[in-house]
Amino acid sequence: MNRNLPVNVDRIAEDIDALAKVTEPGHPWTRRAFSPLFLEGRAYIEARMKMAGLETRIDAAGNLIGRRAGTKPGLGTIMVGSHSDTVPDGGRFDGIAGVIAALEVARALKDQAITLQHDLEIVDFLAEEVSIFGVSCVGSRGMTGQLPEAWLSRTSGERDLAQGILCVGGDPATLLAQRRPDLKGFLELHIEQGPVLENEKKDIGIVTAIAGITRIEVTVEGRADHAGTTPMDARADALVAASQLVLDIRNAAAERAKTPGHFAATVGEFRIEPNAANVVPSKVVLLIDGRAEIRSDMEDFCRWLDAHVVKLAIAHGVTINSPSRVSDNYPTPGNPGLLKTLENACETVGARHRRMASGAGHDTAWIAKVAPAAMIFVPCKEGRSHSADEWAENDDIALGAAVLFEAVREMDRT
Amino acid sequence: MNRNLPVNVDRIAEDIDALAKVTEPGHPWTRRAFSPLFLEGRAYIEARMKMAGLETRIDAAGNLIGRRAGTKPGLGTIMVGSHSDTVPDGGRFDGIAGVIAALEVARALKDQAITLQHDLEIVDFLAEEVSIFGVSCVGSRGMTGQLPEAWLSRTSGERDLAQGILCVGGDPATLLAQRRPDLKGFLELHIEQGPVLENEKKDIGIVTAIAGITRIEVTVEGRADHAGTTPMDARADALVAASQLVLDIRNAAAERAKTPGHFAATVGEFRIEPNAANVVPSKVVLLIDGRAEIRSDMEDFCRWLDAHVVKLAIAHGVTINSPSRVSDNYPTPGNPGLLKTLENACETVGARHRRMASGAGHDTAWIAKVAPAAMIFVPCKEGRSHSADEWAENDDIALGAAVLFEAVREMDRT
Ligand SMILES: NC(=O)NCCC(=O)O
Ligand SMILES: NC(=O)NCCC(=O)O
Repeated sequence: MNRNLPVNVDRIAEDIDALAKVTEPGHPWTRRAFSPLFLEGRAYIEARMKMAGLETRIDAAGNLIGRRAGTKPGLGTIMVGSHSDTVPDGGRFDGIAGVIAALEVARALKDQAITLQHDLEIVDFLAEEVSIFGVSCVGSRGMTGQLPEAWLSRTSGERDLAQGILCVGGDPATLLAQRRPDLKGFLELHIEQGPVLENEKKDIGIVTAIAGITRIEVTVEGRADHAGTTPMDARADALVAASQLVLDIRNAAAERAKTPGHFAATVGEFRIEPNAANVVPSKVVLLIDGRAEIRSDMEDFCRWLDAHVVKLAIAHGVTINSPSRVSDNYPTPGNPGLLKTLENACETVGARHRRMASGAGHDTAWIAKVAPAAMIFVPCKEGRSHSADEWAENDDIALGAAVLFEAVREMDRT
Repeated sequence: MNRNLPVNVDRIAEDIDALAKVTEPGHPWTRRAFSPLFLEGRAYIEARMKMAGLETRIDAAGNLIGRRAGTKPGLGTIMVGSHSDTVPDGGRFDGIAGVIAALEVARALKDQAITLQHDLEIVDFLAEEVSIFGVSCVGSRGMTGQLPEAWLSRTSGERDLAQGILCVGGDPATLLAQRRPDLKGFLELHIEQGPVLENEKKDIGIVTAIAGITRIEVTVEGRADHAGTTPMDARADALVAASQLVLDIRNAAAERAKTPGHFAATVGEFRIEPNAANVVPSKVVLLIDGRAEIRSDMEDFCRWLDAHVVKLAIAHGVTINSPSRVSDNYPTPGNPGLLKTLENACETVGARHRRMASGAGHDTAWIAKVAPAAMIFVPCKEGRSHSADEWAENDDIALGAAVLFEAVREMDRT
């Protein structure tokens, strides 16, 4: 890269490499929220925040925040950040790229002795990934009064989530009362976790919306029979019916993916009973992960599914329960003003950009419910993520950091 | 039933009911081979054998045998029997009906003071069902020198199979040398475990052949990807490909089931990885249980499968290994002379009969490799077996016992 950027790619590379070393040995790149390694990673980040002249704290929700006061107290806070926790065996860039890019914005401002009117906060949200407590986006929900109280008593081993938050320095006692009325705007950089930018040779994805995630459980019940003796035409084979359902779901999703707006549906969990070699399967429980940028697409998919399983059950002589939505989140649009700001910033730094939806959930979706928020994607190799193969180029992250830098400056002006 | 049978249905009912009480509480009807309950069941059977005037012993392979000497020493042994062990949560009639029917033959001979020229042995084979040691037909293989030596060191908990056989009274030291050159003929009665006799209102199935069992493992490997972000057309979803394979196997089997000769194929085991809600499945391992009465049908099915997975892998962008035969047994025909003898016996007692194949494996298949052997089926309700719902009528079992009685007498004459 021979652009003259306001940010320092070597500093970004140094931090990302340093944090990649803070991983479970033999399990790159694992730094699970609430673990000693996680705290070790945070200690590094906090030290770097301090070197950047930021005043650090852990908020009630266990988020690590580095703060730089603005010249006009009371004008509000511009926040930039992401998360430093990882899934098991994945996450060399997922999250941490955004934390380091945000930190680099603060460093670039300091380097160039630029003051902002607004307060600036660099944030490392707690537990964005599904954590050992079975829940995700703990920090971004908690910071904004959106963490369900019941979650605090979810346990993992000896601890509950409240104790987990306490151990990272948060304050579960005041957590539920947290609000951030001072937030004037939030930006996040994240790796795309998909192949679109790479395939289209774009530098930056301007995220128009974070897809809603709907998880649907379906149970197919047939009849356990002797696999050797039961004639092929006298069976109620739950696996055969469930296999047809998997294919039909795939086709229904592929069809909806062709119309405008991101759409995907995946059967990721699939359990059969009794799972014995010589017994016709009696039961399959499958969990569908549906993602829609446009809410009506998801409603339409769910209507299709409800009607389809009735037909399928009759065709295969099995029982299929009415699909049940285990969880159901609406899509979250990016703030239109901030999308424009981010596009302007791309133009300023000379980044090739496109608008696109995020199929994955992000902390930005929670912040966007209470304040103007938007996010950008940087390319990730072959779209691989949540995997040890996850890769992003430091140059691409630096270009993204430069976009954040320019966007923050524009946000500060307006 | 108002037939005048040579056997006593009340005595049969009494024994079957008594053994149904020897079950794990809360798990009808469980009497697993090698368990204390199994030995308790056998103690009952042995006592009943003695009451029938039989001389009892446990052979080297752990089979319980009740013997009645013939009038012409050295002429050889006619053997009748089945097994008293059960699968978990199933087996009120599977096995035990055949042991009690065989015992009733001996009792009927005694009642009517009929002597035979041949020695008669009533047998309860050890561990016909897949046992805690992971192997089946231990007693029928062991009695005839067909038990692989390596099996003796298979373990379950603290014990190996050799110790298990020792505990039931067998002799693992001499087991591998066992042969039964004296066996002149073997008969087994078993519940059908399928719906054919019931549907066709037949009393007896004359088993022309015991289907060969071929177990085939197939591994489908795709690519783990983020379920939210990976476009539908950029996936290598192992579950989607494996689902298509399940349907194709079902159709290929249903087609072959329409031609003469029993054929069935079932995917009974199916494991997906990583089995996580928001990850595109990367791997599915499936185990096919194939059954063929005619060997060439199985060869043809395997050829089809080998070719088909190549096409399927290309169509779905996944890798599918060359299907591997984990185990492969040939079909075993019933002895033609004995089939005729059994048909004559059906005519004598007035039983509606038909020839049919057995889709399930049985001890008879092992005995048939070294001596003339054949078996009959009696109806079982709705074809349910290996289930707590398994049911057969005492009258039907008594009619089957009468067929065995007449067949044994004809075998003794010729
Ligand atoms: N960004 C990300 O991987 N989030 C995890 C939650 C999800 O989208 O499945
Ligand atoms: N008769 C019977 O159920 N045998 C068990 C082995 C099998 O056929 O799967």
